Amino acid sequence: MGFSLMRNQKFMPTIKHLLIISIAINAGLLLKLLHHEHEHEWAGLPGPDTNPKNEVRLVKDVLHKAKPATDQYINLDHGDPTMYEVYWKQMGDKTTLVLSGWQSISYFSDTKNHCWFLEPGFANAVTRLHNLVGNAQTRNYHIVVGTGSTQLFQAALYALSPSNAPEPMSIVSAAPFYSSYPLIIDCLKSGLYKWKGDASKFNKDDPYIELVTSPNNPDGSIRQAVVNGSGGILVHDLAYYWPQYTPISFQANHDIMLFTVSKCTGHAGIRIGWALVKDKEVAKKMTKFIEISSIGVSKDSQLRAAKILDVIADTYEHTEKFDKSTLFFHYVYNEMAKRWRQLRSAVSKGQTFSLLDFPVEKCNFSGQRFGTQPAFAWLKCEKSIDDCEKFLKKHKILTRSGTHFGSSEKYVRISLISHKEEYDEFIRRLSLLSSMNSPHE
Amino acid sequence: MGFSLMRNQKFMPTIKHLLIISIAINAGLLLKLLHHEHEHEWAGLPGPDTNPKNEVRLVKDVLHKAKPATDQYINLDHGDPTMYEVYWKQMGDKTTLVLSGWQSISYFSDTKNHCWFLEPGFANAVTRLHNLVGNAQTRNYHIVVGTGSTQLFQAALYALSPSNAPEPMSIVSAAPFYSSYPLIIDCLKSGLYKWKGDASKFNKDDPYIELVTSPNNPDGSIRQAVVNGSGGILVHDLAYYWPQYTPISFQANHDIMLFTVSKCTGHAGIRIGWALVKDKEVAKKMTKFIEISSIGVSKDSQLRAAKILDVIADTYEHTEKFDKSTLFFHYVYNEMAKRWRQLRSAVSKGQTFSLLDFPVEKCNFSGQRFGTQPAFAWLKCEKSIDDCEKFLKKHKILTRSGTHFGSSEKYVRISLISHKEEYDEFIRRLSLLSSMNSPHE
Repeated sequence: MGFSLMRNQKFMPTIKHLLIISIAINAGLLLKLLHHEHEHEWAGLPGPDTNPKNEVRLVKDVLHKAKPATDQYINLDHGDPTMYEVYWKQMGDKTTLVLSGWQSISYFSDTKNHCWFLEPGFANAVTRLHNLVGNAQTRNYHIVVGTGSTQLFQAALYALSPSNAPEPMSIVSAAPFYSSYPLIIDCLKSGLYKWKGDASKFNKDDPYIELVTSPNNPDGSIRQAVVNGSGGILVHDLAYYWPQYTPISFQANHDIMLFTVSKCTGHAGIRIGWALVKDKEVAKKMTKFIEISSIGVSKDSQLRAAKILDVIADTYEHTEKFDKSTLFFHYVYNEMAKRWRQLRSAVSKGQTFSLLDFPVEKCNFSGQRFGTQPAFAWLKCEKSIDDCEKFLKKHKILTRSGTHFGSSEKYVRISLISHKEEYDEFIRRLSLLSSMNSPHE
Repeated sequence: MGFSLMRNQKFMPTIKHLLIISIAINAGLLLKLLHHEHEHEWAGLPGPDTNPKNEVRLVKDVLHKAKPATDQYINLDHGDPTMYEVYWKQMGDKTTLVLSGWQSISYFSDTKNHCWFLEPGFANAVTRLHNLVGNAQTRNYHIVVGTGSTQLFQAALYALSPSNAPEPMSIVSAAPFYSSYPLIIDCLKSGLYKWKGDASKFNKDDPYIELVTSPNNPDGSIRQAVVNGSGGILVHDLAYYWPQYTPISFQANHDIMLFTVSKCTGHAGIRIGWALVKDKEVAKKMTKFIEISSIGVSKDSQLRAAKILDVIADTYEHTEKFDKSTLFFHYVYNEMAKRWRQLRSAVSKGQTFSLLDFPVEKCNFSGQRFGTQPAFAWLKCEKSIDDCEKFLKKHKILTRSGTHFGSSEKYVRISLISHKEEYDEFIRRLSLLSSMNSPHE
């Protein structure tokens, strides 16, 4: 139509008007589009959720993590994985999830699965990620999803302890062990099971469950079962068996393996863990426990976890769509390596502290050779410092004493996966303390 | 620029080109915009999550809930609130929530709150909704969030049972009681507390906790404590104390009140509940339990729940933005009223079944007078039918026998909040059975 009009000069005013209208439409559409694009930027709370209060809070959380002032406490007691925020921020809207109001109505996710509250998309993402990384077998395993691996750990104890035994089942783990084990196990004074402490001191003939955490929390060591009793059942907590923390030297195929999104991707607030379980009946009983204790697991969190795990796999499997710097495990491995270099350099400045050394192994996932670089440091105070937690607290560094882990107060566990600003300030303070000639407690 | 060009006739070809370019740009922008608009439609999985598999599944779930064939089982054993899907579908994108990849990293939601995993936006939404409905006091109460009210119920038992008593605390509830109480309480054979059954048969002087569920699950009755022991502590489960189910006749102000999103908004898969707790120390101990058993509660689910509760309040407080038919409690009240009319009509067709009657009271929220119209029917089989569950199962209606609720097998609990198609078919079958002259078991 434009062409036929152009042939006749008397239509000029109309063409002029057409052009003006067209440009005006251009501008209007462009503005509307810009508005849309802006909605999808990572920094604001994108899309239809435009609650300004929410936006302000979230942006503040991510953007304005200020370096702690020198007189402020740094809390490295918890393993809060805030280090990961930078990576996910960099990924922009690639992991953005949109949930409609009519989603998550039913209790059920998959009525055909024995684990009826397991979202099929999450199960697929878990399988896909393990197959990519090669850290655990999934073939012939049953997946059970839990509210973090904490709930799954309790589900495993429930499933493995006989309901009619005269005595509660003994639960043990080699010291230093995860400080929450005794608290969780004895919380309700269960008649089904009971915490019996350090596995290396357990030598009864009674049935027992040994918790094998590898790499270990708190000390990062690679673990195997230490009790060799005939009535032993093993539960493997593999929360840290990912290539940013340790070489993937074999594909784990234990009877029960626990994993959590918190330490794999850094999304601790999502509260999602999963168990790979060989025996169907055990998986069913674990499912029963989660049914009784919380009638399943948040669908919203499972959908988010699925999206996040899938994007990680995508960065490796659809490399044409992603920048090389977005390879998840490589990115986080480098950050952990850097933090460990900083830490070892600070500790080596004097005789105040010491750290464990880890053997170098080949990682089948990355092809690289390296030693474990755990999410926690298991720091020992040397010289006359007896209570390491107290000593560091005096210098405004909050850590968790070795006593909580069935070990000595000469040790502390320090989280290495906090915000960069916090970590840098921690390293600065530790370097100073390290290079003091005779630190006083 | 366009105007100065237009003055000179020799620039005609340029104007022609400009117009073509401009129209082309318009077309391009329009296409891109249409794509964006499409992303926000409720029916597809909107926004950046374009996983086609997910989309297909979700759309299917909501749109294509076919009426069960006459030879198919109808499962009304669980209280799966799928009835609510229609309302939330109708609300389109008003409750759509967008979650960015860098959200839910930290374990912590509010370090200044004793309940450190409570999202402030969720706490605000809970307070706002209670103030709107007038069903519970919130002033001077502490909010604790849980993975459904199921987890909060256990948290309350943990908080209220002394840790060093010689005998476990007795837990009772008047029959018929919620069938899950005994299962949850005795699941781990806790030394802290023990299920002692029907509260009306409890007459010991020992300390006890009485669970008061009102309106009651399974029978919908309005309840008060029945034991008058001096050592009694009450926990009120008010999951159904919302104006779609029962007249809001007073503002509850009990010591511990439990609520859940599942039965308020219908979002059972979200797994979010909350407790209103008067005593700060009790709230702290409940928080401790949730910290130990699941290290907090999904942030994603809390954010979604907050959004949903806020939209419900918006439909009443910002009426200028909403159609009258979107008033949440009014909409669901009408649906429940209709379902109860259908049910009573079916039952009245003969002598096979009977139902309880509920006293009519004034609802302070809606101003209307009505009798409780519970989420469950507590149906009695009359005549020679002894096992009501078995009788209905023969006719492909799955329900839960009264025996699970500490009552007789003459009764069954039937969920009334399933999909409309399922409910209609249930009513059709029940009408037939009801009008049979002498049904055989």
